[in-house]
Amino acid sequence: MIHFECDYNEGAMPEILDIMVKTNMEQTVGYGQDVYCEKAKELIKKACNAPNADIHFLVGGTQTNKTVIQSYLKPFEGVLSAVSGHINTHETGTIEAGGHKVIAMASGDGKIRPWQIEKAVLEHKGDCHFVQPGMVYISNPTEFGTIYSKSELSQLSEICHKYHLPLYLDGARLGYSLSCSKNDLTLSDYAELCDIFYIGGTKMGCLFGEAVVITNDSMKKGFRYNIKQNGGLLAKGRLLGIQFIPMFGEDNLYKKAGDHAITLANKLKAAFEKLGIEFAYDSPTNQQFIILENDKLEELNKYFVVAVTEKIDETHSIVRICTDWATKEENIDALIEKFQEIYA
Amino acid sequence: MIHFECDYNEGAMPEILDIMVKTNMEQTVGYGQDVYCEKAKELIKKACNAPNADIHFLVGGTQTNKTVIQSYLKPFEGVLSAVSGHINTHETGTIEAGGHKVIAMASGDGKIRPWQIEKAVLEHKGDCHFVQPGMVYISNPTEFGTIYSKSELSQLSEICHKYHLPLYLDGARLGYSLSCSKNDLTLSDYAELCDIFYIGGTKMGCLFGEAVVITNDSMKKGFRYNIKQNGGLLAKGRLLGIQFIPMFGEDNLYKKAGDHAITLANKLKAAFEKLGIEFAYDSPTNQQFIILENDKLEELNKYFVVAVTEKIDETHSIVRICTDWATKEENIDALIEKFQEIYA
Amino acid sequence: MIHFECDYNEGAMPEILDIMVKTNMEQTVGYGQDVYCEKAKELIKKACNAPNADIHFLVGGTQTNKTVIQSYLKPFEGVLSAVSGHINTHETGTIEAGGHKVIAMASGDGKIRPWQIEKAVLEHKGDCHFVQPGMVYISNPTEFGTIYSKSELSQLSEICHKYHLPLYLDGARLGYSLSCSKNDLTLSDYAELCDIFYIGGTKMGCLFGEAVVITNDSMKKGFRYNIKQNGGLLAKGRLLGIQFIPMFGEDNLYKKAGDHAITLANKLKAAFEKLGIEFAYDSPTNQQFIILENDKLEELNKYFVVAVTEKIDETHSIVRICTDWATKEENIDALIEKFQEIYA
Amino acid sequence: MIHFECDYNEGAMPEILDIMVKTNMEQTVGYGQDVYCEKAKELIKKACNAPNADIHFLVGGTQTNKTVIQSYLKPFEGVLSAVSGHINTHETGTIEAGGHKVIAMASGDGKIRPWQIEKAVLEHKGDCHFVQPGMVYISNPTEFGTIYSKSELSQLSEICHKYHLPLYLDGARLGYSLSCSKNDLTLSDYAELCDIFYIGGTKMGCLFGEAVVITNDSMKKGFRYNIKQNGGLLAKGRLLGIQFIPMFGEDNLYKKAGDHAITLANKLKAAFEKLGIEFAYDSPTNQQFIILENDKLEELNKYFVVAVTEKIDETHSIVRICTDWATKEENIDALIEKFQEIYA
Repeated sequence: MIHFECDYNEGAMPEILDIMVKTNMEQTVGYGQDVYCEKAKELIKKACNAPNADIHFLVGGTQTNKTVIQSYLKPFEGVLSAVSGHINTHETGTIEAGGHKVIAMASGDGKIRPWQIEKAVLEHKGDCHFVQPGMVYISNPTEFGTIYSKSELSQLSEICHKYHLPLYLDGARLGYSLSCSKNDLTLSDYAELCDIFYIGGTKMGCLFGEAVVITNDSMKKGFRYNIKQNGGLLAKGRLLGIQFIPMFGEDNLYKKAGDHAITLANKLKAAFEKLGIEFAYDSPTNQQFIILENDKLEELNKYFVVAVTEKIDETHSIVRICTDWATKEENIDALIEKFQEIYA
Repeated sequence: MIHFECDYNEGAMPEILDIMVKTNMEQTVGYGQDVYCEKAKELIKKACNAPNADIHFLVGGTQTNKTVIQSYLKPFEGVLSAVSGHINTHETGTIEAGGHKVIAMASGDGKIRPWQIEKAVLEHKGDCHFVQPGMVYISNPTEFGTIYSKSELSQLSEICHKYHLPLYLDGARLGYSLSCSKNDLTLSDYAELCDIFYIGGTKMGCLFGEAVVITNDSMKKGFRYNIKQNGGLLAKGRLLGIQFIPMFGEDNLYKKAGDHAITLANKLKAAFEKLGIEFAYDSPTNQQFIILENDKLEELNKYFVVAVTEKIDETHSIVRICTDWATKEENIDALIEKFQEIYA
Repeated sequence: MIHFECDYNEGAMPEILDIMVKTNMEQTVGYGQDVYCEKAKELIKKACNAPNADIHFLVGGTQTNKTVIQSYLKPFEGVLSAVSGHINTHETGTIEAGGHKVIAMASGDGKIRPWQIEKAVLEHKGDCHFVQPGMVYISNPTEFGTIYSKSELSQLSEICHKYHLPLYLDGARLGYSLSCSKNDLTLSDYAELCDIFYIGGTKMGCLFGEAVVITNDSMKKGFRYNIKQNGGLLAKGRLLGIQFIPMFGEDNLYKKAGDHAITLANKLKAAFEKLGIEFAYDSPTNQQFIILENDKLEELNKYFVVAVTEKIDETHSIVRICTDWATKEENIDALIEKFQEIYA
Repeated sequence: MIHFECDYNEGAMPEILDIMVKTNMEQTVGYGQDVYCEKAKELIKKACNAPNADIHFLVGGTQTNKTVIQSYLKPFEGVLSAVSGHINTHETGTIEAGGHKVIAMASGDGKIRPWQIEKAVLEHKGDCHFVQPGMVYISNPTEFGTIYSKSELSQLSEICHKYHLPLYLDGARLGYSLSCSKNDLTLSDYAELCDIFYIGGTKMGCLFGEAVVITNDSMKKGFRYNIKQNGGLLAKGRLLGIQFIPMFGEDNLYKKAGDHAITLANKLKAAFEKLGIEFAYDSPTNQQFIILENDKLEELNKYFVVAVTEKIDETHSIVRICTDWATKEENIDALIEKFQEIYA
């Protein structure tokens, strides 16, 4: 069986394991206060063109979302999110467990629009019976693989700042967005337009690890306490720094990972288009969502593991197929061949 | 500088890195449902002589304590702990953040006694103005390196069951307890006497990872949801299984790690005794706590990193010195030599 | 100005104040353990034909919802509710502050259907990334004044029990439902079909107070602790019992309050129908929701206080007009006259 | 049986019931936005000489403590309190349920000292593994009836402000402190020295109700949302204003209640002293704590209800006896007579 159901089926990029092995028996202080973390932070700040940013490393995405969102909301505030947002669907209520409502906003493509934020703010402003919006959560790419343009992100940023709402961007797959041809955003733009965001490592070729970037000065204080309280402060914290050094150092593995996955996703997408397969969402990134008849899916399932994200009706499903930093071209070719066979 | 301030200054046992490297490019499903986790679970169940236990892997200790304790308490219940318990001191209020009071009980040596539990239960039983004890938390070794004997643990277990309180044991350093000469407890005993406990990997030679063992049937259901909600479900969950396989497989690295650390701790302890250095606690495990005059500490600090855990008075401190799986005998010898010099 | 915007504009039924004044200087024990509370509990159990029910008194509705829902959900469970449910809209996120997601289900009339519950349960059953439904919240009447029939409530009860979900009914305005002509449910039915529900006092003519009725034996234990923890245990708890005695004693004020409000609501409704005024919801209870042009609303607002619950478009609003136990017929007549004038 | 076990055995001062009855059928808006609440707020601001204070009314003390403390702490902060503080003992863990640790400080007399606050702040300042103090909670009188002097409160206030910790004072029985002869504090002093405090109504002769006074400008915003979220926003909020008007209006019932209770407490205390009865705490307020042999207590219990607050040893208990606004002098005389008999 060949796996395409997600972008974390393999371990880590070999270069990352190499540096981990090489530094293994060195002694460092714990909890991310070591030289490797310091080095990695410098590299990320440089990549983001944000010399004054605070960088923190956490192990995983849900942990990061939980920690970030809990850290900044007042008790009576909630976080605005697309109804399909990861925090609203795939995190077992971690935001609510932290005391806050996810104020879900309708979205067909995984993205939210500035007017939705404005409406949510104004609708019950000052009415003490209603949860008040206190932060905006988005991700890029979204859960459906779609992406925000620079113009769209700028408008979101503007409306957030108008209403004093921190804009938080979940970048679990940020690199796959950066590498796609439609993209016009840079890490520097994210640092400028968001108050806080994270650069995901897990899905981009690290064993694990997410780098939180805080550019809003007023949000910097005390964050380490919240990491610890949320169980996110790794004892051997250097493991996080060690992984992000090759990612954002000379090798620029982060970009290589993105480019590789997007090249293969594009190849796959072109094949789907040629076969007239319908797309559920217009994704230029590493996750492709197609609509399949269930008997075709069954045939596919004999050789490939894919993910069903929604059952549309009795006979059709939305199927997610992912490429990532580790995807082998030969496997993509085999997958395309199988599709050609099925659709012949 | 040579580090002795904690037992997580290095990476992981080389055998653990080896298997991680070897399996790196294999594809597995995510979130710990893979073959490596299954294998590791079987090995741990065998080691604990607990074929019906449920095993779960989490990344770190605070995360594990938070997840376990939150999972089983009713809203109005608290967890009983020694005042020096890790959850009461070093976890930034993570238990309270989860909604529960840590009911702290006096303890000079880090251990609690059966009568304290009984008193706490009976004192406000049925009075709705008071938090009710709903679980008992202990660790072995304790925060002060002391250990429970089998007789002591049996008595705690008995009183807990008398009052229907689950007994939870934090085994962050369990292996260092198992290997010390005073110890008369086996993993099998823990499985029998505790309702739930965890076998720590981070401090025993894994990169990270803690294995939760649930033997009480009524506590098995739903635990994975709580792991996820607490941000503890690792995407590449196999990394946890992969590390615990050499730990509890043929190599039995877990025992090797313990034996190595204890041998060196004993050597160090003997040297301290010979020099007439006063011990703060009577620890037979890998953490030694000695009382040092501050000027002696200052001298020591020029070459070695140690941890001050308490300032006793203006001129004396309690100093913690740890050995672990990675401690080099030559470093212990150098440390002893320095002490001999200071105390000459 | 005459108030019709809600059903808590006045104090309490005079008979309730009378008994409060008469018993004022008696000494009783605190926290609801007094003879008046005991008496009131007996009367309510009798009225519900539920001799084994547990009865608890709380001060207000939000407090009651918060306490009930928090008491029974596991950390990873959420509560199913109509999107318009009070807990999802008007309680400033109190359920989320208690750690739980309100799983909102679409509803045009404020009611939810059995298939929605079934779908919500089955959709992500066993998937640890998703909040699991752990309770069902409904109210009768709903937020829109609509009511469940006995057949509908029975079906909800059945599906809840099929999936082991406690059915909780918010009866803030239960009496106004009981008194309306369409109603075929009795208090005894509620006790039989719900696992837990509350009989609201505040909106039915008490100064304050809500009576929680627990009929599911497994949900009885420990509830008082949760009341206390949620700040809901009134020191002079007898004030709650004292108010519910005339409500459910010989005088049966609870029924009188309902009958009075419904008679006047019906009179008003008939007048609206005659004038061809459009109703937003088909409410047979004490809250009437009509669609008004904004200029007509403006005219109305000169003499009467009403509530705008939604702005439909630039020129129309949904307006709520309430009767209650205290509504004077002369005020209803004046209101009707004003409407006739506006619509002339 | 005559009750002396607490200060909430009776209803309310007759004047309070009178105004409630007189205004009963008036229509007002809900949730404390009515003219009576406005009037009461003005009176309290005047009494406190704090024209810019924000005043909020809540129903009970635990609710108030919960709401105040949760509103201002960051997730990783805890509240400093005497170990005997109400929030640490008698509120079923409501502060922890809200996510925060009560950092308990040793106290023999119910009071805390400035150096304890300083020590708690400095001890783990900046160490992300430890809960950080974020607020100071005290009460006057304390749980043991003892009181702070103006000099003591000023010093606490000073140290709090030095470390940017809001000082919160629980005034459940504030009036009984104000009326005792040892007292040198005024309401105006409280407003000046505390950042936030509450003036208790329940124990001073209201049916229920506590008035929160916020003098620190930075703490004013958003408090109503927190009241609502905590289930503390009374629908018929005017009931709170209506009760506080006679309390702080011309009649000054608040002072009368205090004076009455203290006069009788002093009479009782003098009798105890004469009989050579030992006091557990040196209380100048309405709660007297004496040490009784258990057989004497048993004799007392035949005629009087008192509270045992602690069992000292096999044969002795600490007994609390309270006077309040409603205590009858004839009952105090009867109690004294009984003691004379027992001690004859």
